[in-house]
Amino acid sequence: MPGNTKKSADSGLTAKDYYFDSYSHWGIHEEMLKDDVRTLSYRDAIMQNPHLFRDKIVLDVGCGTGILSMFCARAGAKHVYGVDMSEIIHKAVQIVEVNKLSDRITLIQGKMEEIQLPVEKVDIIVSEWMGYFLLYESMLDTVLVARDRYLAPDGLLFPDRAQIQLAAIEDADYKSEKIGFWDDVYGFDFSPIKKDVWKEPLVDTVDRIAVNTNSCVILDLDLKTVKKEDLAFSSPFEITATRNDFVHAFLAWFDIEFSACHKPIKFSTGPFSRYTHWKQTVFYTHKDLTVKAGEYIRGTITCKPAEGNHRELDIDISYTFNPREPNREPVSEDLSYRMC
Amino acid sequence: MPGNTKKSADSGLTAKDYYFDSYSHWGIHEEMLKDDVRTLSYRDAIMQNPHLFRDKIVLDVGCGTGILSMFCARAGAKHVYGVDMSEIIHKAVQIVEVNKLSDRITLIQGKMEEIQLPVEKVDIIVSEWMGYFLLYESMLDTVLVARDRYLAPDGLLFPDRAQIQLAAIEDADYKSEKIGFWDDVYGFDFSPIKKDVWKEPLVDTVDRIAVNTNSCVILDLDLKTVKKEDLAFSSPFEITATRNDFVHAFLAWFDIEFSACHKPIKFSTGPFSRYTHWKQTVFYTHKDLTVKAGEYIRGTITCKPAEGNHRELDIDISYTFNPREPNREPVSEDLSYRMC
Repeated sequence: MPGNTKKSADSGLTAKDYYFDSYSHWGIHEEMLKDDVRTLSYRDAIMQNPHLFRDKIVLDVGCGTGILSMFCARAGAKHVYGVDMSEIIHKAVQIVEVNKLSDRITLIQGKMEEIQLPVEKVDIIVSEWMGYFLLYESMLDTVLVARDRYLAPDGLLFPDRAQIQLAAIEDADYKSEKIGFWDDVYGFDFSPIKKDVWKEPLVDTVDRIAVNTNSCVILDLDLKTVKKEDLAFSSPFEITATRNDFVHAFLAWFDIEFSACHKPIKFSTGPFSRYTHWKQTVFYTHKDLTVKAGEYIRGTITCKPAEGNHRELDIDISYTFNPREPNREPVSEDLSYRMC
Repeated sequence: MPGNTKKSADSGLTAKDYYFDSYSHWGIHEEMLKDDVRTLSYRDAIMQNPHLFRDKIVLDVGCGTGILSMFCARAGAKHVYGVDMSEIIHKAVQIVEVNKLSDRITLIQGKMEEIQLPVEKVDIIVSEWMGYFLLYESMLDTVLVARDRYLAPDGLLFPDRAQIQLAAIEDADYKSEKIGFWDDVYGFDFSPIKKDVWKEPLVDTVDRIAVNTNSCVILDLDLKTVKKEDLAFSSPFEITATRNDFVHAFLAWFDIEFSACHKPIKFSTGPFSRYTHWKQTVFYTHKDLTVKAGEYIRGTITCKPAEGNHRELDIDISYTFNPREPNREPVSEDLSYRMC
């Protein structure tokens, strides 16, 4: 995996912040727009289906720069309401203006939970709400609030389905670069940091050849029916080694579907698909496993908002591995991670 | 230049933050420690000069994980005081402990301006205070406070010299990727964002072959004598084209020197030196220049903390270019940038 180390602000005597945003206010929008797996999937789902959008009332939850709202207007929507709490919406207003769509798109700054749309119901809700590991700092809660309050009984959601997949990977080199590094830092023992680094899932790109098991769906969301409480979940999993190899980590990614389209449109953020800015999420195990093709790793993954901070995710993975031959020890671990 | 787009948090309906730190609290420390141009320069400046550190009292301003304090202890310092306002200092305490240096290193959480050291004076101040473009969110103000309050008259500063250099670059492809992109975003005009993007210096790596002028020192700081007010500066510059080429941007970087060392140690964050996490800083011009080898670009660069937010930097660049032949138009611009 590329060693594009991640950054944080917890450094320095004064606020010597290395937030990327501290030197690029537009970078995230540039990155999301240039993520064409993401943006073209939305564009095609919307603009290839004018028969679904023509003369419809659309709500764009978390409209950002307004790109999805403009796709909907181009697809023939009667009117689009874009809602975003961020200051970006002031730019979105200017963008909609220069693109001469102000008469068909109304942008509202505020929290979905607090604002009042000028309409009772909408026919379609579009939203790009997904976060890392699908649920980390995602806007799904907000989309569900919008759905329950505004979506007409026969209304449509774009997208309307999301799945999280789990597999395992061989990752010796990068694991030692990310975890082992702290054992000897220029001759000093940094193990007090190592144990915290271990608890933190790593968001990064993984080469498909690192995956050495099949994958298992650990969450399958139908956005039309899912409830907020379903987003805290516990799922058993069983994955099977596809070759003789070592396992150093579990790997998670998500897939998205727009099933309301004439021809269903899907995209994956997994290692077998093109790069997206969501990358994948790596959970390093403490023990390394020596697996043979056909052997199982069985376990349970639990994910819930952290106590006291609902923007953080607590993810626990308990697994057991029983090798076929007695010359390899059975392995089982109960691992706890936090995305924060 | 690699298109590693920068990220910000100004996105989404709920706090869908893409701060890198939102998924790596240790990444910045990992990145800084793994920046071996940085870390090995400090290590060598300190540990190759035990004759300067033996039995001395040292203050480490912004000690972070404590690595510099530990270098000083290893170099024979009698006692090291490490000060940092961030929570990281709790980890530093544990790290110093496991490395059995607690008797020689005292770590204090707080603002340099507010805390009281248990000593009247220190013999040496070490600090890694540099930010992007040297001064952006840097800790230099704080180092100067520490110097004026605690450094003995004949005391030493590590480092004790910093320079900012300015040159020009050819950067057509990346300029169109970063600036031109906003002209046509999936068929929409995003020019309202383009004009803001232009005002923001880009922190990124630049290939040495892109540099097509000589460089000019625009700031030269002697840390023993510099005053806080000197950090708001205005400097004339004159740079000379080294080949027939096009100029798309000005480029700034900084160089650091530890001149107190037996053998002075220097490192550069410029395009002609190895990668550092500070990269370089790019200021895109609005007009592109057609220059011939030997022709001058003359101007003035002004840098000061932004009104109302001293963590932001206002940087103005005014320049004039007079080509030798009349068939090329003279060009002059007054450009304003903000690092925020």
